[in-house]
Amino acid sequence: MSVRRPLHRGRVVVLAGGVGAARLLRGLAPRMAPGRLTVIVNTADDDVFHGLNVSPDVDTILYTLSGLSDPLRGWGIDGDTFAALGALGRYGEDTWFQLGDRDLATHLFRTRHLREGRTLGEVTAMQARALGVRVRVLPMSDQPVRTVVETSGGRRSFQEYLVRDRAREAVRSISYAGIRAARPSAGVVAAIAEADAIVFAPSNPFVSIGPILAVPGIRQALRRAQAPVVAISPLIGGRPVKGPADRMMRAHGLPPSPLALAEIYADLLSGLVVDTSDRAFAARLEARGVAVAHLDILMRSPMRAAAVGDAALRLAASLQRRRGRLAG
Amino acid sequence: MSVRRPLHRGRVVVLAGGVGAARLLRGLAPRMAPGRLTVIVNTADDDVFHGLNVSPDVDTILYTLSGLSDPLRGWGIDGDTFAALGALGRYGEDTWFQLGDRDLATHLFRTRHLREGRTLGEVTAMQARALGVRVRVLPMSDQPVRTVVETSGGRRSFQEYLVRDRAREAVRSISYAGIRAARPSAGVVAAIAEADAIVFAPSNPFVSIGPILAVPGIRQALRRAQAPVVAISPLIGGRPVKGPADRMMRAHGLPPSPLALAEIYADLLSGLVVDTSDRAFAARLEARGVAVAHLDILMRSPMRAAAVGDAALRLAASLQRRRGRLAG
Repeated sequence: MSVRRPLHRGRVVVLAGGVGAARLLRGLAPRMAPGRLTVIVNTADDDVFHGLNVSPDVDTILYTLSGLSDPLRGWGIDGDTFAALGALGRYGEDTWFQLGDRDLATHLFRTRHLREGRTLGEVTAMQARALGVRVRVLPMSDQPVRTVVETSGGRRSFQEYLVRDRAREAVRSISYAGIRAARPSAGVVAAIAEADAIVFAPSNPFVSIGPILAVPGIRQALRRAQAPVVAISPLIGGRPVKGPADRMMRAHGLPPSPLALAEIYADLLSGLVVDTSDRAFAARLEARGVAVAHLDILMRSPMRAAAVGDAALRLAASLQRRRGRLAG
Repeated sequence: MSVRRPLHRGRVVVLAGGVGAARLLRGLAPRMAPGRLTVIVNTADDDVFHGLNVSPDVDTILYTLSGLSDPLRGWGIDGDTFAALGALGRYGEDTWFQLGDRDLATHLFRTRHLREGRTLGEVTAMQARALGVRVRVLPMSDQPVRTVVETSGGRRSFQEYLVRDRAREAVRSISYAGIRAARPSAGVVAAIAEADAIVFAPSNPFVSIGPILAVPGIRQALRRAQAPVVAISPLIGGRPVKGPADRMMRAHGLPPSPLALAEIYADLLSGLVVDTSDRAFAARLEARGVAVAHLDILMRSPMRAAAVGDAALRLAASLQRRRGRLAG
């Protein structure tokens, strides 16, 4: 993609889940000056399959930024095959979590280096370098955190809930096992402190952005940050582009709308990018101190994703200027 | 393959390396009465690649007996792909040890179950069952034993020597790291004690059969066994069908011939099956107390392999009868 419009020159931190965040980054990354974009990625949907450490959101971000990702599915590697998984099935192993053959290499590499004592942050940096990713990709934490979903049918790991059971069970509550012992991975707090803009990707607020905010130290870093926090809504007209965010909002007693996001992100949020179809919420959001930008936020193409990223960064910049005026 | 000739009804134990042993078993296994064949497999060329426990000889035997093996290469799974290995190369990993995608499933399964506390013998039995292998396949030991090859270029693991360096370096000595702490895996000693015939497959005496014999307790069990030990020569006219056995014999000061096998297996050997082209050695072998059978031992087909297996079992039976007469 040729970049004609001026690059964003400030330091930007994006808090990211998987597919929605990857879509945003596919548009945003090429518009950033080199070395200015840091992505802090949810690792609470990490899990172990066949003895391998799988970090689905980190992988989705790396595969997308390296151009390897499957553009239709959103996860995995384009054109990947599933011969190993088929053979694991022959050994009687569970194969509901789809791991492609090339994808397996990512998990083999990660697992071996973790076992040899490297941190998830170090391994992720090695993988990003090997794949030619120039964006700085940081896992939220090196310590294992696992989203646990209590459903009508019982306790589920996040991947059991989402992939195996296809998010069909009613959600009663969500918790993050291991969160108290977790610490932000190396670079996370500094990146937040030094950022000129902080963007919450259009990811699920409970199971993607939520775990990142729950890592002890990250919410405090965001509160202390100089930069405004701008979120991009994962909802369009009360429905998520992908995933069960609306049902999770309802389970928390929140009607799925941009107002729910302002409620969930509460003290952190300065700005919100919503879909034009949701612009009616702008007045109520602004009454709560949340500045609003609206445009067509369905990211059908990298160009549309770039427009959404631009809108978020413009909103952040205007909030910065406003703060400057208030301070001055 | 239809079985017209009478089945072998006695209990047979085969000591096995990889490809040569697998060829023999492909012919022999269908001629055995159910539950009568036990294979004790070398595990000293096991190694760890990409964090996975790989047991090349066990795999070759399992893949061959389940009909999965690649008939041309002799190792790996027929029609396997190498997508994961290619992707590991992209991460900068060594990829000289060829691991196919379906083959990876075998190592993933093994590694996970070993980590969860199962023995190699238990995992091998689970894999044999999953692949429909009815022959009893026992690793020589559950403890790790590693063949170390001292070459003109330095110390090599067996796979480094054989696969990475293609056995081009001169061999100075061979040792089995971990051998003192090794014990025969469950069932090995009992199978030897109860056997009616014990066959050494046409495998390398130094790096395939040698490590099995070096496991403390196995040589003693063979000496105490009721059954005669019959070896099938891995040499034809002084050259191995595959691999560096002849050069290893020379490195040990032994001209490569059936006489060298009688020397190496010494006190254990009662009979030797040699190629017709080596029948001139028969008199000298018999003078050393080793009975000889000769036929075309190049196992071009399962039918030829069956003939070689038959010859070994007939020789063992005639030795048993002779012992019976001597005892009576």
